[in-house]
Amino acid sequence: MDNKMIVAWMESGMMQIPILLMEKYRQIGLDEKELIVLLQVISFIEKGNHFPTPEELSERMTITSKECSLILRRLIQLQLLKIEKDNSEEVRSEKYSVAPLWTKLADELMSEQKQKDLQTVLDEGQ
Amino acid sequence: MDNKMIVAWMESGMMQIPILLMEKYRQIGLDEKELIVLLQVISFIEKGNHFPTPEELSERMTITSKECSLILRRLIQLQLLKIEKDNSEEVRSEKYSVAPLWTKLADELMSEQKQKDLQTVLDEGQ
Amino acid sequence: MDNKMIVAWMESGMMQIPILLMEKYRQIGLDEKELIVLLQVISFIEKGNHFPTPEELSERMTITSKECSLILRRLIQLQLLKIEKDNSEEVRSEKYSVAPLWTKLADELMSEQKQKDLQTVLDEGQ
Amino acid sequence: MDNKMIVAWMESGMMQIPILLMEKYRQIGLDEKELIVLLQVISFIEKGNHFPTPEELSERMTITSKECSLILRRLIQLQLLKIEKDNSEEVRSEKYSVAPLWTKLADELMSEQKQKDLQTVLDEGQ
Repeated sequence: MDNKMIVAWMESGMMQIPILLMEKYRQIGLDEKELIVLLQVISFIEKGNHFPTPEELSERMTITSKECSLILRRLIQLQLLKIEKDNSEEVRSEKYSVAPLWTKLADELMSEQKQKDLQTVLDEGQ
Repeated sequence: MDNKMIVAWMESGMMQIPILLMEKYRQIGLDEKELIVLLQVISFIEKGNHFPTPEELSERMTITSKECSLILRRLIQLQLLKIEKDNSEEVRSEKYSVAPLWTKLADELMSEQKQKDLQTVLDEGQ
Repeated sequence: MDNKMIVAWMESGMMQIPILLMEKYRQIGLDEKELIVLLQVISFIEKGNHFPTPEELSERMTITSKECSLILRRLIQLQLLKIEKDNSEEVRSEKYSVAPLWTKLADELMSEQKQKDLQTVLDEGQ
Repeated sequence: MDNKMIVAWMESGMMQIPILLMEKYRQIGLDEKELIVLLQVISFIEKGNHFPTPEELSERMTITSKECSLILRRLIQLQLLKIEKDNSEEVRSEKYSVAPLWTKLADELMSEQKQKDLQTVLDEGQ
């Protein structure tokens, strides 16, 4: 019985998120609800649903599907999420990509790195 | 240059969260802010800080440290988070444990499983 | 340019393995090549190929496809891997499941836990 | 009882490895035993032991500590692993870093990307 639980647990899946996202979401202009919508989109993609509807998202959240729609639109405007054509199936369809999010986080990491390097140079110059 | 980025990216770390948590947090009584506080606590633990203060949490969030305090208290009352004695260091201190969260999620998984099993029995009986 | 790398890196994917598997594979009767075959199967599943052939496996390994076949058979005999019917597609096909591996690891964890509990009882009895 | 298992399972930890490593280890000159030594080093680091000895490594493996020593040396020569000074503790000590491994994998990814881009250009030119 115990072991059936472990199998169910493993099969329900894990998602991985860069700790950087937890550290920087405020700096890239997001609040908690917007971050959760992003994480929900990632979790749906992980499970094979690449284009969750606002209804599917809101079912798991404390916000309405209308609010979800607005947040999705805002995430696209902020260039953290984009919609791509999905050519994997015969029927033409669309899918979300979070590639822009990784790009934005990488920007943050890079500018942080540069500042550290600059600080080191300044410190050594003293 | 590119490769230095990958190293910085990998060293900034990833955290793993059960997709079940994204699916069920509303059912176990949490809203988006409370979930993010939980995830922040997990991300701090991942990085070796086992007892982040409300100030450390709120620095990365859009809420005040006072609101963080209230949420932490609520998470403990909901039995999703607990405070343990940390005996790993010489100085006596405290640390958070999210063990109660995994227990609660496992409960959810189990009752879901039972309902499915029951449904199968009912369906077969027809 | 840098950022394109991060996106390519994230999209190439990560797999998660229980540290327990690294600690216990020898105890459950595996050697290094057998463990890698298991990990390769998991990595293929993660990428959507649920029934990699011995040829696909051996292409990434230092062993022949024939040796891969033998190892796959052995993993099935050891009840760490099983073949299931895949009903997700229209065409009937087969897929691997590593559920038996999680069960075996959970067994190991449980017997370890029991031994610890017993030791505690014995220690307290003195 | 079931739920205690889940907590023990989660606390035993997960490690994340880039699927790229599974795909490319042969190309970067490793065999299965060498890959497992690398993965074991990563799993020890994950659990807080940043400088596992050959003895600690071989205890979990089917190879001797002497063979582990040789493999560790080879991984350092191949520039996939390096030894750094660990300044986190008061006592001076050493620790392993797998940063060179990520760099090497990023190299592989980049040269693959370039080849694809070149192919696209060639295909379009026809």
